[in-house]
This record gives sequence, structure tokens and C-alpha cells, in this order.
Amino acid sequence: MNPTEIIRKKRSGAELLREELEYFIGGYLSGSVQEYQMSAFLMAVYFRGMTFGETTTLTDIMLHSGEVVDLSKIPGIKVDKHSTGGVGDKVSLILAPMVAACGVPVPMISGRGLGHTGGTLDKLESIPGFRTSLSLKEYESIIAEVGTVMIGQTAEIAPADKRMYALRDVTGTVESIPLIAGSIMSKKLAEGIDALVLDVKTGRGAFMQSEKDSGEKFGKKTIAFITNMDEPLGYAVGNWLEVVESIECLKGKDVRDLMEVTEVLGGAMVMLGGKARTIEDGIRHCKDAVASGRAFDKFREMVRRQGGDVSSIENPGRYPKSACSYEIKASARGTIDEIDSLEVGLAGIMLGAGRMRIEEKIDPKAGILLKKKVGDPVDAGETLAVLYTDRKDSLEEARRRVERAIVIATKPSAGSPLIRALIDDKGVHPWHQ
Amino acid sequence: MNPTEIIRKKRSGAELLREELEYFIGGYLSGSVQEYQMSAFLMAVYFRGMTFGETTTLTDIMLHSGEVVDLSKIPGIKVDKHSTGGVGDKVSLILAPMVAACGVPVPMISGRGLGHTGGTLDKLESIPGFRTSLSLKEYESIIAEVGTVMIGQTAEIAPADKRMYALRDVTGTVESIPLIAGSIMSKKLAEGIDALVLDVKTGRGAFMQSEKDSGEKFGKKTIAFITNMDEPLGYAVGNWLEVVESIECLKGKDVRDLMEVTEVLGGAMVMLGGKARTIEDGIRHCKDAVASGRAFDKFREMVRRQGGDVSSIENPGRYPKSACSYEIKASARGTIDEIDSLEVGLAGIMLGAGRMRIEEKIDPKAGILLKKKVGDPVDAGETLAVLYTDRKDSLEEARRRVERAIVIATKPSAGSPLIRALIDDKGVHPWHQ
Repeated sequence: MNPTEIIRKKRSGAELLREELEYFIGGYLSGSVQEYQMSAFLMAVYFRGMTFGETTTLTDIMLHSGEVVDLSKIPGIKVDKHSTGGVGDKVSLILAPMVAACGVPVPMISGRGLGHTGGTLDKLESIPGFRTSLSLKEYESIIAEVGTVMIGQTAEIAPADKRMYALRDVTGTVESIPLIAGSIMSKKLAEGIDALVLDVKTGRGAFMQSEKDSGEKFGKKTIAFITNMDEPLGYAVGNWLEVVESIECLKGKDVRDLMEVTEVLGGAMVMLGGKARTIEDGIRHCKDAVASGRAFDKFREMVRRQGGDVSSIENPGRYPKSACSYEIKASARGTIDEIDSLEVGLAGIMLGAGRMRIEEKIDPKAGILLKKKVGDPVDAGETLAVLYTDRKDSLEEARRRVERAIVIATKPSAGSPLIRALIDDKGVHPWHQ
Repeated sequence: MNPTEIIRKKRSGAELLREELEYFIGGYLSGSVQEYQMSAFLMAVYFRGMTFGETTTLTDIMLHSGEVVDLSKIPGIKVDKHSTGGVGDKVSLILAPMVAACGVPVPMISGRGLGHTGGTLDKLESIPGFRTSLSLKEYESIIAEVGTVMIGQTAEIAPADKRMYALRDVTGTVESIPLIAGSIMSKKLAEGIDALVLDVKTGRGAFMQSEKDSGEKFGKKTIAFITNMDEPLGYAVGNWLEVVESIECLKGKDVRDLMEVTEVLGGAMVMLGGKARTIEDGIRHCKDAVASGRAFDKFREMVRRQGGDVSSIENPGRYPKSACSYEIKASARGTIDEIDSLEVGLAGIMLGAGRMRIEEKIDPKAGILLKKKVGDPVDAGETLAVLYTDRKDSLEEARRRVERAIVIATKPSAGSPLIRALIDDKGVHPWHQ
């Protein structure tokens, strides 16, 4: 066996054996396989793909390249969620404390935002003092004590994935389904979970199948939802703006699209966690947790325990403000027909709310607050969205992007349902709202 | 522009602009594009290919990454040959002095053998003292003085190609037509040639088209021949054995298949060099050069001038002998129907005549001497081939390979012509023997 032969074998489209993947990835970690050989291999995987067996083996090797947390001494069935992500998707911030408040422990290792979608870690870190870099020891004690914990990937978790991900980022090999699935699942499996709920945006079905199958292969009960992502989720896009919206929802505000997704994922998690018989029953538990104030209490407890300034989430109005703001007005009367997520996400990056490169700094205050959602009627001159930024120079292009993103029609088109289908071990089921 | 974006653009199948290729390859040489980014790029090229425009630009950038020799002060039209290579292909050793003896200067930068085919440099270096690593100054003075010179790629010639080739070798990205064509043509164009003849083995047509078009794009008159390579060329396979066969041919021995290819390529070179009106006329000049002894004299002159021991080529019988030899006998009476080049080439590697990895050492004495060629009648028990090696342990497997390679039939099949077609700027023409 030698590294070049393994690259050539993958290049030819053949299926790699476990010992070949172990030799190659093990060699990469020990230094006998070079960075330039791994990057050529990753590009060959990009073009040739991987079988389900190869993906599972890759996941397993990356998982066992580091520590696998054992949460078995903590009572309860531990359940996490993974989402393919989207603009304005702050679901995790509401979901984790809500499900934990229902008695199901939610250990969560999340990532940072890259490109036009945000990352849970960046949102949490907009809370002054909030620490997402915890040791696995702290992680274990917080999940035991609070019932939920939200951290970033530590050095001990799947180091092979960590190095490979950094390399993929600079070699144009990020967008490969088996590599993405292996990367996500190796981290999720290392968390110490017993079950997993997946939120897969429409059009990303291939990811879902691969991740769902992986989860089950590793003995974790896995349920997937296919959800729509035609417009940003909720009204806020930008880190602190999204924290504020999450707090409002945890306190009972019914931002319908955001809460619909959050509740259905939560319902499934509560069911998988053994605290409800059905998903619908789980949804009721989730609504109770919010209405009773237990969900927000759990969030406050987690923030405090992870070093965050609790007064900032109790009095969000005291948070620093952006130097500039700009209101986008409707040019005509009609109905909001479309809000293009990608354009809004890219405008957010320009305002300082996101990053195109991992080393870029984020401005937690920056972002976009939508005032209207798809289906809402508007009058000419009404405010559609407000932009917030310290970057005066970027305002003009961000404004143009958001204006282009929001389409007003005289005759509204029929909307599509937000939750499209549920996939469990029995197959695909339409989901009825 | 950033390296990752360029990788992604090639990955998507889009055509790269000149400034993008310049930025990427220039950055690789200056250190701002990393090895792992170049290897991912090369793998993307492997899968996506390159347009003719991209290949030409790549060639041009690699060519101008180093020195381009200017031989314009040396009188005459300088012509070289490139071949896709084959087992027993010692054409260059006969061709260069033969054409030079016709008054056409032949500057030749060659490569080493890798895999089952041999390399001209390894063959030349089996001559005691022969130096293939010359400075460009020596190269220029020898071509001026002798009329031919045969060296390896120097550090000054196409350094971008040199680094990229080494990287391709360890990242499974060798077998890409635009990369091969760019690599070969950048070196050939740097030699200082005015015209080029290509010998393309049947089935490698894609290389030829790409190289021929490149040559013309750079203003070099280029003629290509498509030749057959069903059996090894000539009788000898192995470095010194091939030098001996070349000497015999330069002295007038008519090894038909070998000399047929050598003469047609030589005829075209002499014509391109302005010393004959037609290829047929050029062939006559070549035959004269051999018959008169001028071709061998030219070879001897070149060997002497490049530091080789002239007595060794004048008395080849004094050369050291292999420790073991083995005669393969015909198992039945009949006609030789097939001699599989690949199997013979691989047997040669086992005996020590070649290398699978560039750092392996070659035994110049080792190899295979065929006693029969396709179409020859044989009696049971007659010798088909003799193996020579110092590696007693490898003899058994090499023997099995060569036995398997030589097929005896009771009813001979019709052979196919050796020279199949000629391609010049007017199109493809069948070649009549």
C-alpha cells in the first residue's frame, strides 16, 4: 500500500477498503501522507463520490481519531439536532433549551458561519462573556447540571475531521456529500448522543439520506425532516439580532415560520428522548415549556453557566447599537412574493454580520431586520427591512442587494408548506401542518 | 482572485483565463499558492480536462517559468522528435546522430524511464562515463560543434513543469492529457527547436492532437506519425542491450521494425530541416548516412563529447555481464503471433532494467533479448528470448511473464502496418510502406 496508489484507486472510481482508508487517514495524522496527497485525494472524492460503506468507514475513522464522549452516566436519552442551515436560522438557540426544559438532555457541538449562512457559535458569542470553547470535562458537567450545553468542536473531538476540514476549505473540496456527511456525523457521534433529528432544507436531499443512514449505521435512532427555506427564517439576520429574536420566541412570541420548524424538530426530539409518545405529543410538551417560562429559564441557566452576561439577555435593549441604520421602503403597493435568502445573507456579510473567510471578524451588532415576510400585504413607502452596520461604505451595495431580494407582486402566488416530509426508519411520510 | 476560487472554477469545468493560470502557477512558484492547493487543482484538471486554449496557456507559462534556449546563432533548422514511448523503443539513440549526419541539428532534452517503458537518459547513461546532466552552456556548445546533443531537463528549463511533475507523481495526477502535453511541449519548446516530429503510438491519439496543435500554436512546424506498438521495438529490452542494438543499427544492421520507424521519423526531420524535398527523399538521406558510416561516427562523436567511454561502444563485448541468464524455449512449433509489450516491459523491471519509482536504481546490464519477432516461424525447443539479471530471485516470475507474453499460433494472423498515418498541417494521410 502506498498513498499514491490509494489516490489513484479513488480517482478511478473504485471502492476503497477499510484498511486503505485507515492507512491513508492514519498516515495523514502521523505525517506519512502529505497535505498535498490528502488534497488530491479529497478532490478525487469530490468527483468520484463514496459508497455508503466508504462514507461510514470514513466517519468511523474520523470519529475514533479523537475522544468519543461517554454520557451514559447522565440519566435520559441524549438527543441532538443537525441542520443543513440557512439564512436567519436561529433554531438551535430556541430548540436546545426548549427540549431540555421537557426533560430531554441536549448536548450540542456546533460550527461557525461561513459564506452566506450564520453559525450557532457566532450567535452565542454575541452574548457578552459567553464561552463556546469549553473542555470536555466542563461540557460533561454542564450537560449533567443544566440539561443542555452548546460548544464548538474541541481539539479532542475528531481531530482528523478538524485537519481535513481546514484543508478542504482552502482546496475547493468542501462541497462533497460524503465528506460533508462524514464531517458532521463524526462530530455528532462524538458528542455522546443516543438519537438525532436532522433538518434538511429542500434540495439538499442527498445530504440527508447519507447522514440519516450514517446515524442509523452507528446505532443512533435518526429522524429527518425536509423543510423549506425559500425566505430567511424569522425576521432577524445577524448574530445579536438573532439572539434577540430567539429570546422573544423563548418568551412566547409566535414568529410562525421559525417556531413551526423549531416545534416540529423539538417534538421529534422529545419523542426520541422518551418523553412523548408521538411527535405531535412532543410538540405540545415544547409549547408548554415555552408558555410556562421553563424554556427561557433553561436558556438563562445555560448562558450563565457558560459565562454569558445574563443581564444582557434580560435587557437586550442595552446592547451597543450600530453606527448606521437604513430603512428600505416598499416601492409599490402589493404582497411580498419572495425574499431571496442568498441575497439577504450576502448583504448581511457586507454589513459585517458574516464572513467569507474563517479568519474574518464578525460584528455581532450588524445585520438585517425584516419588517415583512412572504405573504404580507404592503403599502408603497412602508418599511420592508432595516439594515444595521458600522461599515458606512458597504451600506449602498447591501441596500441594493436587499431591495433586489424582496419582490412585491400585485397578485400573490400560493406559498409552499414549510415542513415538507418526515423520514424515519419506516420511510418517507408527508407532513401535515 | 484567490487560489481556492481558481480551483473551484476548474472543478466546475469552466475555462480558466490566462491571468488566472498565471496567478495560480506564478503563485505556486513564489509560494503564495500551496502544494496542497496545486495538487487539488491538478486533480480537478484530471477530471475536467483543459481546452486547447488553456493547454497552450499552461504550456506557455511553464515554458517561460525558466530559460528558453536561443539556438538562432547556430546555422540550420533545428528539429527534434518526441515519442509517446514504448518497450524497446531506442529510436532516439539512432535517430539523433543519423539526422545530424544529414546536416540537420538535433537538440534533444529527454526523460528517464518510469513504469514499463524505458527512458533515453537511462539508456545513454549505461555507456560508462556518459553525462546527461549538462549546463545549458555545454548543451549549446555541443549542438554547435557536433550537430546533436542529448541531455536531461536542467534546473533552468521549465522549473514550473519540474515542480509540478514531481507533485503529480506522488498525487496520482500524472495521466492527464493536457498536463502531459503541457509538460512535454514546454520542455521541447525550451530546447531552441524550429520544428518537431511526433511519434504517437496507436491508441494515444488524443495526446498527439494536443501536442501537435500546441507545437503549431507556438510557431513550430510539426508533423506527427501514428505508429503501431504491438510488440517491443527491435529485439533488445534493457538499457545496455538497447545501446548495443542501436550501435548495430547505426552500423547498418537492418532490424526492420526499429529501422522502419527510425527512418520515417528521420526522413520527416530531414525534410523539416530543409535538407530534403520530401519525407521519402529524407529517408534516402538517412539510409545513406547509415550506409556511409557517418551516422555511427556522429554517435561516437556525441558520446565522446558528452564524456562517454568510446571504447565501450566500439567493443561492446567487453561490457560487464549479468550474473544469471535464462533461455526461454518454444513449447510448440508454429508462428509467433503476439509478443505483449507490457508483459515484457514489466519482466524487464523485475530483472532490474527499469524502475517503478523514480528513486530506484537501474541495472544497465539487465534485460531481455528477444530471438524471435512476430511473424517468425519457430520449432518446439527453439530459443524465443534470453533473460539477463543479477537478481536470481526475480528470474522465476520474469520468466513466467515473458513466456505468457509470447504467443505461438499454428495459423499466423495478418499483421498490421507499422506506420499507420501521417498528420501534417494539411490533415491526416495514410502512410504507404
